[in-house]
Formats: sequence, structure tokens, C-alpha cells
Amino acid sequence: MTDTNTGGGLTDGLDELARELDREHVFHSWSAQANPSTLVIASGRGSRVWDHAGHEYLDFSSQLVNVNIGHQHPSVVQAIREQAELLTTIAPSTVNLARGEAAKRIVGHAPSGFRKVFFTNGGADANENAIRMARLHTGRDKVLSTYRSYHGNTGAAIVSTGDWRRIPNEFARGHVHFFGPYLYRSEFWATTPEQESERALQHLRRVIEAEGPSSIAAVLLETIPGTAGILMPPPGYLAGVRELCDRHGILLILDEVMAGFGRTGRWFAFDGSGVRPDLITFAKGVNSGYVPVGGVIISDPIAATFDDRVFPGGLTYSGHPLAMASIVAALDAMESEGIVENAREIGATVIGPALAELAERHAAIGEVRGEGVFWAIELVADPATREPLPAAAMGRLKSALVARGLLPFVQDNRIHVVPPCVVTADEVADAMAIYDDVLRTALEGEG
Amino acid sequence: MTDTNTGGGLTDGLDELARELDREHVFHSWSAQANPSTLVIASGRGSRVWDHAGHEYLDFSSQLVNVNIGHQHPSVVQAIREQAELLTTIAPSTVNLARGEAAKRIVGHAPSGFRKVFFTNGGADANENAIRMARLHTGRDKVLSTYRSYHGNTGAAIVSTGDWRRIPNEFARGHVHFFGPYLYRSEFWATTPEQESERALQHLRRVIEAEGPSSIAAVLLETIPGTAGILMPPPGYLAGVRELCDRHGILLILDEVMAGFGRTGRWFAFDGSGVRPDLITFAKGVNSGYVPVGGVIISDPIAATFDDRVFPGGLTYSGHPLAMASIVAALDAMESEGIVENAREIGATVIGPALAELAERHAAIGEVRGEGVFWAIELVADPATREPLPAAAMGRLKSALVARGLLPFVQDNRIHVVPPCVVTADEVADAMAIYDDVLRTALEGEG
Repeated sequence: MTDTNTGGGLTDGLDELARELDREHVFHSWSAQANPSTLVIASGRGSRVWDHAGHEYLDFSSQLVNVNIGHQHPSVVQAIREQAELLTTIAPSTVNLARGEAAKRIVGHAPSGFRKVFFTNGGADANENAIRMARLHTGRDKVLSTYRSYHGNTGAAIVSTGDWRRIPNEFARGHVHFFGPYLYRSEFWATTPEQESERALQHLRRVIEAEGPSSIAAVLLETIPGTAGILMPPPGYLAGVRELCDRHGILLILDEVMAGFGRTGRWFAFDGSGVRPDLITFAKGVNSGYVPVGGVIISDPIAATFDDRVFPGGLTYSGHPLAMASIVAALDAMESEGIVENAREIGATVIGPALAELAERHAAIGEVRGEGVFWAIELVADPATREPLPAAAMGRLKSALVARGLLPFVQDNRIHVVPPCVVTADEVADAMAIYDDVLRTALEGEG
Repeated sequence: MTDTNTGGGLTDGLDELARELDREHVFHSWSAQANPSTLVIASGRGSRVWDHAGHEYLDFSSQLVNVNIGHQHPSVVQAIREQAELLTTIAPSTVNLARGEAAKRIVGHAPSGFRKVFFTNGGADANENAIRMARLHTGRDKVLSTYRSYHGNTGAAIVSTGDWRRIPNEFARGHVHFFGPYLYRSEFWATTPEQESERALQHLRRVIEAEGPSSIAAVLLETIPGTAGILMPPPGYLAGVRELCDRHGILLILDEVMAGFGRTGRWFAFDGSGVRPDLITFAKGVNSGYVPVGGVIISDPIAATFDDRVFPGGLTYSGHPLAMASIVAALDAMESEGIVENAREIGATVIGPALAELAERHAAIGEVRGEGVFWAIELVADPATREPLPAAAMGRLKSALVARGLLPFVQDNRIHVVPPCVVTADEVADAMAIYDDVLRTALEGEG
């Protein structure tokens, strides 16, 4: 709490007012409403945020793993301010320069053969529209996705999702789930990455055959499943999925909402894999969430399907000027400041080694995995059985981390280490000291 | 084109560059992509917008009927600029003052018994989440909505939608459609508004009985169906729907995405009807679309359902600070500047009478209807048979209006007269002269 940007009784009062209004009037995502969070965030910069009273937090969550460029990057803030002054909103059917410039920059990072972008408001409707395109392009209905996945909270996106959030929401048809690779908790009795990859592909091949290949429009995958655990695909898996898709005329949609735009230390998580998807969905990192936006990057044959045929999807805020201006500024800054390279470098030389060391010191760490600024610490009650650390202990860990001034991303039995791509080695060292200390003290008597 | 804010060859070049980037890289909503719009919008103010070369357009579309406060309202622009400087993005689980202030103002315009707001990115996911709440609160599956309706482009929202856009997208279950009241094209062989209301209610009652009342979670209605034709509910209809819902424990969701926040000359379109819905969905007018946002206003018993039970819905940008700041500023300006009152007054004393006069002068006008700044001109090839004016003639009208410097909202065989709520009597007079002239010249030889 050394670095305060405001202070005193008045600002303490603002925190209390914010909490009071929140309790009274704000209904929150994915939670029971009776016990709302009390963590006020009033301002931010880089990897740090503050409440009104000046309490400082090191943001190792990037909020919901979206603030890739860090909080309040000056050139992105400036671009939003300038566009706000000029023009905030236009209908999607009109033409606007910021929209063209944003789309041009996005396809500039995509593989060859992608020339068009459809803009949405976030990741959920990006996936909705990618699924729509796949169905209409192929004339087929079914979409295959994995049980360990999250694709958004709307009709088709939530039923594509594999995790518990799908269960109370199963009102869409045409969705089939399969198991993806996850060696630490293999569904395939595998013991090596190569075996996990091979067996996961065989499982997918069998699901495709059993469902009927000609009924399947697309396989929808997070390139690296994110909220599900930062599940790094084993060698050959993505290429094998691509091959299965090609064999049966099935499209491959890669969901890069969380993994894309720098998080892995690459522009897209699939870069360097040799795999080219048919549709790419994005949100979060493209503008770090400074303005709500998402979208679909469309390969040329799919785009051509809608040259003379009406695309039956759309939304009022598609290609919103403020969002577009923020994308242009964010991507330009990420390029000129080497922000993606920083994520790669700090992941390889600082975070990775530090987490490996942490794992050696704590028996409760079953596995660490990741790359760039996209890492998971998997916590277990028993390293031998790999039984997940119980929810109560995870809750204590989370509270202790916040109390120590670190905003963590905690999911199930995992802490995801997901700071902004601009994080510094010193900030990582500070965070690691906090993780270390909290794992030692908050888990006393566990396991 | 007297009022230019920029000019010269360089800016003409910007318009051409915008068109070129658009053709090359932007995939547009609800359209075939081979013939994109060429209308560049670079800036705006009040009821007017300009391209880079300074060509001026009178915006009688409010873009997609969202710019209720007019383009570039200075205090809303300023609020966005200030919030951008302070904090652009936070996770939905945290607490933020702007979010509480926005929610407080929104419930301040809702009836008593509404205390909480769930924020989404737009109208589609507002309806998705209202449907989710209704299903979980009632423990029932089915949602009834009308054939003449539009509720958004995602999974459940697009299948709730009644118009042609639903047909290629029917991948959600639990949706049933019925016919709403529309006297000019009655589905019930009615000849008076009272008869239309009574018969439409009898039809809905029969659908409810035939579907099984205890299987129905909600009736979802646009209070005034908007894109479907600004279909004013006849006397007693909304109250009758409410009564049917109450009799069977069915929730009433009113979709106020287009009709709400001033468009009708009231804060909500249902104000003054004596009808209180269970859930209200909104977007567009709440902040005039300056930042993408929407949401659900939740009545207390439904909110209480999720006090101790996890609400299984959510999104990264729920309660986005920039959107929240723009809501606070927009609602404050609408109140202090009497913008809703202006919409009511100008609708009653200027637009309504002018459209009635226009209808007298043009045989092609079958009906005009509306209130506030929410009006439809229904065009027919034959006033006796009410056969809609064909698409080719509508296309000619649209082009002629744009060529005369008026941005129209054209849908099917209708021109919707939907300027911002801040429109002046002089601007209405200018627009009416253009409509009059174009109807005379562009329809020569028709009908």
C-alpha cells in the first residue's frame, strides 16, 4: 500500500458507497447474490489496481484474463478519448474508417487465407456467429466441443461449453461433447504426452464416426482450454484434429478468446503449430477489454459463402467505433512496444522457472503448466491420488492472496497465474513471494 | 451540404479509403457481402451525421433506433473521456462505483418492486439472461413470443424472434410463437381496435391452454414491436396478457430494447399502461449505444431466487465501467434537459400531425402509426387490398431519401420515422419535405 493515488476519509467513504450501491442494485455473474464481493476497484495502471482509499493490488488475474496490455495503457486510453470526441456509435451497415483499420490489423496477424472480420460484442456472440457460419457453410447441424471448455453464456455458446455452467442451460440442440487431452487427469489411461495425444485423437475419431461425420458442421476448440485449466495440447493433437476435420469436411473453429492476442507469447495460440483453422473467434486480448468487443476472423471460402447469400446474423453494435479505435491503438502498441515478445520472454525465463521452483517447495502443487503469461498451478490434497484440494482450502488461499495485495484467478482447485503481458520480472518476483508465503501459511494442517 | 466540418480532397480520400478497407476486410450484419453499403459516417452531432468530405445527413433512423440522446451529446462524451482516463475495464465480480450509480439510476425509472440490474453487452444477451432467469425461477421450459418480433441474434434470442431471421437459426428448444395484435393486417378478422385486442387475447389464451400452462416459463413481448413495424398495442392488450400470465404463474418479460428510455416519450413504453412486467430488458436508448451495453431489470421475487442459489449466467464485460459512466451521464442529461418530454411533445404536436397530413397526400401510404419519436409509415401498392409496396420500389425510395440527405430506417414495406429524442421541429419539417418529395417523385408510375 505504498503507492496510493488517492487517500483519506472521503475516499474510504467512496469505497463504502460503492459497496452499498453494489449490494443494493447490482446483480452479478455466475454467483449467488447474497454474498457479493467487497473488492472495490477504482483505478489501475499496468499490472496494478487501486480502490478509492489507495489500497494497491498486484493484478495476477488480468481481471478475467483480458487485460493483456495492462491497465490504462496511455495510447489506448488516448485513442478511446479521441474517438469519443469524434463519433461514438454508428449502425453496422454503414462504413467507418476505424472499423476498416481494426479489421485490417486483425487479419494482419491471422494466417494467409483470412481476409474478413465479423465484429461482435464479446466472446460468446463471437462463438455464436462462428457456429452459425459453420452450419450454413456446411449445411450440417452438429457442433463438437470438449467437456473441459468454456465458450460463453448465450444459447449456443453455453451449450457448446463443457463445464458445469452448461448443465442448467441446455436449451440448444446440435451439440455433442467429447474429452480432450489432459495428461495429469487423463481420460484415456495414458502415461506420456504422446500417448495422451494419440488416444485423445482416437477418442475424437470414434465420436465423429459414431455421430456420423456427414452430420457434423464443426469441431469447436479453445486452442488452449483456459478457464478449464490452461490445458496445453500435447504434441500432434491440434494437427491430428485438423486432419480428422479435413477427412470428413468438418470445419475447425479455434476459440482464441482467452488464449489469443499475446497471452501465450504468440499472437494466436495456434501460431507455430502448423495448424490453420477455418474460423477464429476472439475478444478479451484484442483490445484488453477496454471497450466490449469480440469477433470472428473468417477464412476466404466461408466468407465467400455469404457473398451473394444473406448472412442471417448481426447486432446493433457490430464494429462499434469506440471498440474499433481501441483495437487499432492496442494492436499498434502491442507491436511497437514488443508486448507479445515480453509475454513470451517472461514466461520462458521468469514465470516458468519460478513456478517450477514453487512446485518443488510445496507438496500441494500437483502440476504447473503453461507458457507466456498463461499458467496454472494445480493444487491437490494428495500428490499420489491427485485428489483436488477441497473448495474450503481454495477459498482460504484466495482470501489470503487478496489480503496480501494480490488479485488471483482461482478456479476449482487451481490458481491461474495470468498477469498482463506487460508484467515485469520484479512484479513476478513479488507475486511469487506472496504465492509461496500464502501456500505455506494458509494450507497449514492440510493434506 | 451547407454545414461541413471538414472538406477537400484529402478528406474525400479518407471516405474512399474507408470504403476500400470495408470492402476488403469487414463482414457485415444481416446482409450479402458482395454489395456492401458505401455510406461513410465519420462524425455526428444531434440529429446529423457527416462523412469525411463534409456531406451532411439528417439522421431519421437514429442509426438502429438507438441514438435517443442524439449524436455526440457533450456530457456523455465527456463522461466516457473521464472514465477512460480513470479505469476502462474490471471483472464483473468486483465492485465499482460507476456500476452502482448506473444501476441505481436505471431502477429509479422502473416501477416499484425492481431493485437489481444485471448488465450485459446488448439487447440479445439481455433477452438470453431474462429467459434464463424466467426458466430457473419458474422451473418451466417454454417461452412464448410473437411472430412479428425481433429479440436478438444469439441462440435463444434469435429463436424467440418471430421474423424471417429465426428460420435459418432454429437450434434452440422451448420456444413457441403466437400472433400479436396488428389491426391493419389483422390475423383475427377484426375491424376495430377493441375487437383486435379481445381476439388477440383469446388467441393467446388458446395457445397457452394448448401448450399447457404449467410448461410455460414466460411470455416475452416487445412492449411495442419495433423492427416488426412499430405495432402499437390496442387498448387492454398488455393488461390482458398480464392477467393471463398471472392466472397461470407465467412470467411477463417486456423487451424494451428499442422502445425504452425515451423513444415513446415515456421512460418505458409500458409506463402509464398500468402493467408491471416481471423482467424488463433494455439496451440502445439507455446510453444511446455510445458504449455497447444492455441488461435486465429484475423484480424482487426473481432476484431473491438467486440470493443463495448460483445464477448460471454471466459475461466478462458485465457492468463495464465505460458503459456504466455513459449510462449515468446519458440518464442525467435526459432528465435535466427534458429529452423524454421533448420526444413526447414533438411526437404529439409535430410528427404525428405531419405524418397524418403526408398520408392524406399520398395514396401509397396505407397507415401511419406511432408516438413520441417512434413512428411507421406503411406503404402499399394498393390501398384497397393493402398489398405491400414491392421491394424494388422500397429500394428506390431508400436510395432517393439518402440522395436527398436523409438517413431513413427502411424495413420491408415501411419507412420508420425514428429520429433522436432531441430532434427539433425544424428538423422534422425538413424531413417531412424530403419524405413528401421523394414519395411523389420516386413512386411515379407505381400502384
